[in-house]
Amino acid sequence: MSFKVPEDIVLCLNEERGKEFLENIWNKRAAYSCIIGNTETAKIPGISAAGANPEATDFTPAADMELLYFGRCKCIDGVPITPDGIPTPGIITMSALKLAPMPIVVIDGGLRVRPHTPYIDVDASPGEDIRTGKSVKNAERTYDRALVAGRQLAKMVDYLVVGESVPGGTTTALGLLTALGYDTNEKISSTFPVNPHDLKRQVVIEGIEACGIEPELLERDAMAAIEAVGDPMMAPAAGLIAGAAESVPVLMAGGTQMAAVLAVIKAMDDTVMDNLALGTTRWITEDKMSDMKGLVSQMGDVPILAANLNFSLSRYDGLKIYETGLVKEGVGAGGMSIAAMAATDGRVTCRSLLDEIEKNYARLVSRR
Amino acid sequence: MSFKVPEDIVLCLNEERGKEFLENIWNKRAAYSCIIGNTETAKIPGISAAGANPEATDFTPAADMELLYFGRCKCIDGVPITPDGIPTPGIITMSALKLAPMPIVVIDGGLRVRPHTPYIDVDASPGEDIRTGKSVKNAERTYDRALVAGRQLAKMVDYLVVGESVPGGTTTALGLLTALGYDTNEKISSTFPVNPHDLKRQVVIEGIEACGIEPELLERDAMAAIEAVGDPMMAPAAGLIAGAAESVPVLMAGGTQMAAVLAVIKAMDDTVMDNLALGTTRWITEDKMSDMKGLVSQMGDVPILAANLNFSLSRYDGLKIYETGLVKEGVGAGGMSIAAMAATDGRVTCRSLLDEIEKNYARLVSRR
Repeated sequence: MSFKVPEDIVLCLNEERGKEFLENIWNKRAAYSCIIGNTETAKIPGISAAGANPEATDFTPAADMELLYFGRCKCIDGVPITPDGIPTPGIITMSALKLAPMPIVVIDGGLRVRPHTPYIDVDASPGEDIRTGKSVKNAERTYDRALVAGRQLAKMVDYLVVGESVPGGTTTALGLLTALGYDTNEKISSTFPVNPHDLKRQVVIEGIEACGIEPELLERDAMAAIEAVGDPMMAPAAGLIAGAAESVPVLMAGGTQMAAVLAVIKAMDDTVMDNLALGTTRWITEDKMSDMKGLVSQMGDVPILAANLNFSLSRYDGLKIYETGLVKEGVGAGGMSIAAMAATDGRVTCRSLLDEIEKNYARLVSRR
Repeated sequence: MSFKVPEDIVLCLNEERGKEFLENIWNKRAAYSCIIGNTETAKIPGISAAGANPEATDFTPAADMELLYFGRCKCIDGVPITPDGIPTPGIITMSALKLAPMPIVVIDGGLRVRPHTPYIDVDASPGEDIRTGKSVKNAERTYDRALVAGRQLAKMVDYLVVGESVPGGTTTALGLLTALGYDTNEKISSTFPVNPHDLKRQVVIEGIEACGIEPELLERDAMAAIEAVGDPMMAPAAGLIAGAAESVPVLMAGGTQMAAVLAVIKAMDDTVMDNLALGTTRWITEDKMSDMKGLVSQMGDVPILAANLNFSLSRYDGLKIYETGLVKEGVGAGGMSIAAMAATDGRVTCRSLLDEIEKNYARLVSRR
């Protein structure tokens, strides 16, 4: 019987390869890994909604990981929220992991606040404001360490799901992709429903000017580009994925931030690209204010898969509001939803996921 | 066909259970994990030979891990050696891993010097001189974090091999086991051929007196005992092993230091003891100046397996000298040798291991 893509997974780019990728991971043993980091860029007013206020974004990645491990946060009360009170997409990831349990592997991709969980240290440091042009330290060293870690993980599972949580990360994604010479015009997503493209572009231009490296040199050196205007998650994420993808498929779980990681992988080792797919949410692929497909198609024929999540009929306003374009993606929510379907032979669906998400939402958020 | 224990593995204690354990792990998928740490106790003159001099012992655990990952050390030139120039048992572990490759997972169990490898952080800090009676910080927190990590690892492999590298660790093992009320009289091993039992006992007595806790209380509280006179590897090692052993067998690779970890597990969660075996070297089980069997038999019916390593016919003096009782064990050398035999259906033997060890010894040591 030939493999049929379930209707809850949408093939958005390079459909044939996306279908093959899905077939390859269907019913296989996976691990979920998440690279988490902080960048001072998140604290520029108007940049990130991944925290109740700019200072709170320091805690968001650590709190997200605690949510996955323990079903509740430890370093903060409640769960990470936007300034409007919308809960972290980590609730989606946590719900997917509850329905399809798999090992969780956290990587410290440059944290200001460490989670109350075990995590892999790859010698990353927190990122600076990209306007300094000196955003990240030792990118290549963190890439190399994570490469080694990815190879170890690949020996233990059939495939890997890799997410990220970096407040302010869409701005650094714009920074990196601009530095690498990609056409980024209104293509990068945002946690806000109205994407502050102009503010982000201005911040990026300032950073590129401040770094003092010729644009032609920056374009050819992904590690220098990250160190100038990227964030500290990018190099270890690219390393981990490249190391694992030498031998197993890797589902890169994220939106345009993962597209930036893909650009790093392409620059460092394009031989592994055949083992990659991007997995995200419908909110990203249908977003009118960004263009993930337009970005990824500049990098090769890596497929994009989208979980057809739809919260419009949710009982909770805090979930319904995802349909207005707030938050959209993060903590590998879309990719992990897809992986939960794959791990359960399709028994997990967007409907059963929403039920689980609502249950966790009720427990974690609505009673606060 | 019934399972036959190969002659290169010696059943030393609880033979029937040892045979069952071996049968359970035979030809199965394993990961090798090593918890590494430092204690200032190693710098007491005459305590440890795991380094060219007391200060050099800070680098030994990190260098051992680099050896496993990269086939050479990065934080030091050459490999860790005793004051007499005898190379680290990490060469045995590395050779076993070359013949039977498996994923390597390093845990920071309180390091002064970090390895140039990825490693899992469980919030451990380097240990103090046990004569202070305040050897270790936050033992229970590191146990809990490692417990969570052990559960994740157990989801990815059929069984786990867990080693350690802690210079000075036999003295802290004596400290912990004494504090927990075990009969330790001349039972704890040493890196030296002539075991400095009196010096060690004196150091331990000083530490127990300094800690200011009543012996009866210390006996009943393994975490307090570690914090008083243990080392920082013990709690995360016990946590990792207990977390994994909830669902899969764990081969505790080590000598009397691992016996101390077993005592911690017994105190924290004795329901997992059925899933454990100790794997070590013949040099430990035949040592006349220590008594691992006498220790372990006080803790329950956990089997001891020994790799029948014999270097007496080696071409290299630096290996031959292992037969005089120098070094004996460390970095999980004995247990990993057994795991290499199990992973290859017995194709790896003590003979083929020695060939591989000699090759690596020649490359790493003799040409220096």
